[in-house]
Amino acid sequence: MVKILVCYYSRSGNTKSMAEFIAQGAQREGAEVDLKEVEKVGADELLGYDGIIFGSPTYYGTCAAPIKELIDESVKLHGELNGKVGGAFSSSANVAGGNETTIINILQMLMIHGMIVKGDPRGSHYGPVSVGIPDENVIEECKAYGRNIASLTKKLFG
Amino acid sequence: MVKILVCYYSRSGNTKSMAEFIAQGAQREGAEVDLKEVEKVGADELLGYDGIIFGSPTYYGTCAAPIKELIDESVKLHGELNGKVGGAFSSSANVAGGNETTIINILQMLMIHGMIVKGDPRGSHYGPVSVGIPDENVIEECKAYGRNIASLTKKLFG
Amino acid sequence: MVKILVCYYSRSGNTKSMAEFIAQGAQREGAEVDLKEVEKVGADELLGYDGIIFGSPTYYGTCAAPIKELIDESVKLHGELNGKVGGAFSSSANVAGGNETTIINILQMLMIHGMIVKGDPRGSHYGPVSVGIPDENVIEECKAYGRNIASLTKKLFG
Amino acid sequence: MVKILVCYYSRSGNTKSMAEFIAQGAQREGAEVDLKEVEKVGADELLGYDGIIFGSPTYYGTCAAPIKELIDESVKLHGELNGKVGGAFSSSANVAGGNETTIINILQMLMIHGMIVKGDPRGSHYGPVSVGIPDENVIEECKAYGRNIASLTKKLFG
Repeated sequence: MVKILVCYYSRSGNTKSMAEFIAQGAQREGAEVDLKEVEKVGADELLGYDGIIFGSPTYYGTCAAPIKELIDESVKLHGELNGKVGGAFSSSANVAGGNETTIINILQMLMIHGMIVKGDPRGSHYGPVSVGIPDENVIEECKAYGRNIASLTKKLFG
Repeated sequence: MVKILVCYYSRSGNTKSMAEFIAQGAQREGAEVDLKEVEKVGADELLGYDGIIFGSPTYYGTCAAPIKELIDESVKLHGELNGKVGGAFSSSANVAGGNETTIINILQMLMIHGMIVKGDPRGSHYGPVSVGIPDENVIEECKAYGRNIASLTKKLFG
Repeated sequence: MVKILVCYYSRSGNTKSMAEFIAQGAQREGAEVDLKEVEKVGADELLGYDGIIFGSPTYYGTCAAPIKELIDESVKLHGELNGKVGGAFSSSANVAGGNETTIINILQMLMIHGMIVKGDPRGSHYGPVSVGIPDENVIEECKAYGRNIASLTKKLFG
Repeated sequence: MVKILVCYYSRSGNTKSMAEFIAQGAQREGAEVDLKEVEKVGADELLGYDGIIFGSPTYYGTCAAPIKELIDESVKLHGELNGKVGGAFSSSANVAGGNETTIINILQMLMIHGMIVKGDPRGSHYGPVSVGIPDENVIEECKAYGRNIASLTKKLFG
């Protein structure tokens, strides 16, 4: 059974809500999923997962500082996340308010750790985005993203 | 009187429609504006403008190939666009369908020419985006973008 | 046996040289590799491979127009590349002359096709870069990249 | 006389050294320059400058967390930096180790504040990069960058 971490930062609750639906999707695909606020995750814990998905609100076109702090701390295990599966999602206030660059920014960090990421030919291509409170469409997208990441993780680690 | 080029590629008509509203906004700010399809623009013509705004549909998260062809051709005048004002806009099918990365991609090309670009603290921060046919909100954003680019161009070249 | 395409655009020969070393690395890992100039590749051919690696010189911080033309043409098979493995590399004139953004730009296109990409915790994290003619270091990086992409492709398709 | 802030985070001293040469260049162009570590800058202070240049080591392809913390804090003055001039620079360990994406990442944040940024048709196009300790070439690039940003700031605010 593969293990996946969904690690998020949330103030308004929108990113947290997305995290829950992504976790649901990954569980339905048969993964063991931990859902944690970034403030409660130490870098060492990242080693215990086959797949790691980060969620952040869109703060100035990139992830919130607490996510970056965890990534900066993770330099002590540089190389050890190589080959794991990664993902990212974001909530934002505006349609073109920086949500794509936030996700790309997180995926770049994960790639520098040597992680494997995957796009989606439909909808939000780089990762799920919610403009404001997740609506039905976003909820479905989040669940599908969780399933897709879990499915890829199973192919590689199952 | 400053001169601005709005140069676009459009198949469905959505990017063309955005281009027209941006041109309108720039004219209202007092700029002399040319509105041209990219297929009808030669690289040498770029020298005749103080500000250049490129518009493209979102094709795989970046500009359409005809825009890139013009930019590649413009290498023959590399250095001569240094200090001009630049801008970008995009139409796309999905909210997080690659529209931001398309705009950033165009702005990067313009920066490599030494051009000056500006973000917006409201709405579509990197440049106007329309998901589908431009609605009232997008139309206003396009007009405001035209005014803002023209205003910056006037400060530098007026 | 997995099949990999290394598809490149090259004017000076530097990108072509990188392509050859990447192809060598992928072969050494046991993949069947085709090495082709982008001008000789039709979009339909992309369907015949498990992994696809694109190489381009750094032209204004993104791929050369002929690469973009192939990607734009590939819209006719949108969805059918979903789950394949992708990669990218670039040659450039300057250290910070746009090579990273070129690679990221290509990887974004591949992600929008639903492809799977992987970073490297050492050296050129997003994909191999050569500043000028490939030196010993770059040659080794290219060979390792070919091996890594082939290895990931084997895990998923072997 | 225009006022410019060079705000940096540095552990090894390389980013600090770059900051000093950039400050020198801006002073030579006639600007009044403050050079400050990011830990000693409060968001409110940003209001006192016409131009703001951020420098960071390349940490996972983006700026160090303390830079992001200041930017996140600066949301309280969102809109008030609109129209100021911005810039970015980075030091890194590898040629393609994430330095360009770090600079682009910072410039995106500044654009979301409505700031004005400019590329360079020569050398490091998006902003100065040092791979390791700044050499003669990088030192000249840093000085030139300081002069260029100061020159643009003078045109707009002088």
